[in-house]
Amino acid sequence: MSGARQGSRGPIDCRPGTGISPAGMERNLMDRIVTRTLSCGMALLVERMSGVKSVGLAWNVPAGSAHDPADRVGISAMWAELLLRGAGELDSRAHADALDKLGVSRGTPVETFALGVSATLLGSRLADALPLIVDMVRRPRMDERQIEPVRDLCLQAIESLKDDPQERVQVMLKERHAPAPINRSSLGTVEGISAVKADELRELWEARAKPGGSVMALAGDVDADAAAKQLERLLAGWSGAGERLTWDEGTAPRGYVHETDQTNQVHIAVAHDGPAEKDEGSWPERVATAVLSGGMSGRLFTEVREKRGLCYSVYASYGTDATFGRTVAYVGTTPERAQESLDVLMGEIMRLRTEEGRVTPEEFQRAVVGMKSKLVTSGESSGARAAALVRDYHRLGRGRSLEEMTARIDALKVEDVNRHLRGSSLGRMTIATIGPQALKVKRET
Amino acid sequence: MSGARQGSRGPIDCRPGTGISPAGMERNLMDRIVTRTLSCGMALLVERMSGVKSVGLAWNVPAGSAHDPADRVGISAMWAELLLRGAGELDSRAHADALDKLGVSRGTPVETFALGVSATLLGSRLADALPLIVDMVRRPRMDERQIEPVRDLCLQAIESLKDDPQERVQVMLKERHAPAPINRSSLGTVEGISAVKADELRELWEARAKPGGSVMALAGDVDADAAAKQLERLLAGWSGAGERLTWDEGTAPRGYVHETDQTNQVHIAVAHDGPAEKDEGSWPERVATAVLSGGMSGRLFTEVREKRGLCYSVYASYGTDATFGRTVAYVGTTPERAQESLDVLMGEIMRLRTEEGRVTPEEFQRAVVGMKSKLVTSGESSGARAAALVRDYHRLGRGRSLEEMTARIDALKVEDVNRHLRGSSLGRMTIATIGPQALKVKRET
Repeated sequence: MSGARQGSRGPIDCRPGTGISPAGMERNLMDRIVTRTLSCGMALLVERMSGVKSVGLAWNVPAGSAHDPADRVGISAMWAELLLRGAGELDSRAHADALDKLGVSRGTPVETFALGVSATLLGSRLADALPLIVDMVRRPRMDERQIEPVRDLCLQAIESLKDDPQERVQVMLKERHAPAPINRSSLGTVEGISAVKADELRELWEARAKPGGSVMALAGDVDADAAAKQLERLLAGWSGAGERLTWDEGTAPRGYVHETDQTNQVHIAVAHDGPAEKDEGSWPERVATAVLSGGMSGRLFTEVREKRGLCYSVYASYGTDATFGRTVAYVGTTPERAQESLDVLMGEIMRLRTEEGRVTPEEFQRAVVGMKSKLVTSGESSGARAAALVRDYHRLGRGRSLEEMTARIDALKVEDVNRHLRGSSLGRMTIATIGPQALKVKRET
Repeated sequence: MSGARQGSRGPIDCRPGTGISPAGMERNLMDRIVTRTLSCGMALLVERMSGVKSVGLAWNVPAGSAHDPADRVGISAMWAELLLRGAGELDSRAHADALDKLGVSRGTPVETFALGVSATLLGSRLADALPLIVDMVRRPRMDERQIEPVRDLCLQAIESLKDDPQERVQVMLKERHAPAPINRSSLGTVEGISAVKADELRELWEARAKPGGSVMALAGDVDADAAAKQLERLLAGWSGAGERLTWDEGTAPRGYVHETDQTNQVHIAVAHDGPAEKDEGSWPERVATAVLSGGMSGRLFTEVREKRGLCYSVYASYGTDATFGRTVAYVGTTPERAQESLDVLMGEIMRLRTEEGRVTPEEFQRAVVGMKSKLVTSGESSGARAAALVRDYHRLGRGRSLEEMTARIDALKVEDVNRHLRGSSLGRMTIATIGPQALKVKRET
């Protein structure tokens, strides 16, 4: 779906990041975000941060886990490894040496809608590093002798999940709450990875890694014009658009799923629906989640952990995409306390949406201050800013400045949050548990 | 040991952070670090960072896991919880509300030599937050009704380690490699936590939480004079020094320890000695560790993961303290590959110290660039800078600027690293494994 979003503006398009400023060549210097669509069709977002010597790079290519062919689930996990093992003229060792020589920390996270290439480095090294980074996507070697070791590693990663029930319960939750193919683990499946052939890796990458649907963000010590000019050169000749994803929301099974395992803790994860990023309700929902889980005065922390001492770890987290939103809550506790922990967790999620449980002005105030404080702190990290810009573009088609988001929070009132909560639907909920025994699920919406 | 380091300078002492500048009231504006010993005896380090709106606070109090009485191991873990549950006039809820209202993210990490209080917030809120934060250390309530829930949580945290073999193997390694009492897990023990009485919590905290041996660092949007003045007021009347720790290096058992567990992965951890921070060898050792594990061209990544595909996760990490240093390496792999993984890991650690395995000029170059790059990136985070200053003060008695550390790295030559490696001793090594079967340990130094 979002993977197919293709740039529609020409290479000279250059607009500020706020929605309220007029489009055109003008730049809003205050929020410092420059957005361009390069000739090839890829979107480029650049934010210069003052007082910063590093630059964060985030590049999403429409080849995420949801794009994997149904009988090759995990091919994206193999690509993530292979992109780090040689590109262009440089074999695996030479390419790694070259990037390390420039002091580039990098990674290739597999996400649902994208394969990411992320990097942090000194701004002064960016011009030297970009050719090496671009080669990872445009000319990965996928040398024959790398394929089997990579397959092995990917299978090991799945295997190691067996020793990590806290992570595994999240995989179970996503698989059941979201419809296929956007319900997949980033690790892939044993069957899918075992079936992948060397030729498929190369051919399918060629077909997937397209500028249309790709987006790159640079944040920190970076000059937008120079970076854009260099990227135009490096990406010349790249063309086409990634595959359009579709799914049917109605196909997700949801409900309750339990895995019996003689773990010492019971791991409980809960998911419910929420507004998509572009929906008016996304900011009120974010405040509501902060009331539930935003700080040590959050309701979950207070009710589940502090008052009842039910668990060591409890949280709720709200995430959005272009067309949907989702809140995921987790509690890990002892088998004896598991049922009560689940009941209290579900109770708090529901209570927030009732008249008696409405958000108080004090809670609202704390939530808003905490959100703004975290916004500033994460805004001081070049890597976090680059990642946020790419996420914004994927969800909204544009990058938002910290100032815009702060203003959005400042405009909220507690009544907005309560009105939103009363009118919001959680959808049918999903509960996943891992532990010695299944729990009783009292209510599903 | 280091916990007893007490400030010897008066309240007007104010010196720049570099060792080369003359002491006195003068400030080295370039590196921006101001160090003072407050009237109470606590050291205060302040670094103003330009272009930053947040401030990071790190405060170490000499009440770490190593300070726990031998029959109350884990009392520090209980304090870490209790410090977050009410202080001064404010009960648990009111105190949490007050800090959340100011947007203060905080934590209370238990370390070997200190109980930490860490916070990140907007610089503009610091003056309002400091009284609340100071109360956590000087006037924690430790209300009766909080004690049992906290004890329960601490016991649960230990219990949850059973589901986390990757973390557990590190606990085993530390326990065996370091001498008592500096070999303890930050979680404490079931016996120790079960034995703690409510009165002991309050009385022992009173005895431990002293200004002598305490150090606070503030980094980011902060004015040193204003902060020092406010802290002088808030800490007036606080006096005394923390307990002096002693240990006998010779008492650590070291060698090989295995825990049989039907895990899916085998978790292998290795420790060897290295230079203390103040030793000339600490920087060459840091470069050597970067050659081993600093980037994707690092030897471990190349030899263990990439060439042989032996494991998904492998790394080595060198850490220092005031009087000792330690390198910890980890590899997680399948039972079939475990023996070879351990052998290759040990082989690479040894080879680095041989003539054939010496660090090449290219490796040296990459390691140094990577270290400097990471230094800059972490230097842009106010929280990371505050933590680094406190760590520096604990190990060296002063804070180091990024400029000083960069200059130190720039002064190194590859010959220095190889000379250091040839002359360095690993001490007797420790190996800890968790998995279905014990491994064969071929060599221990």
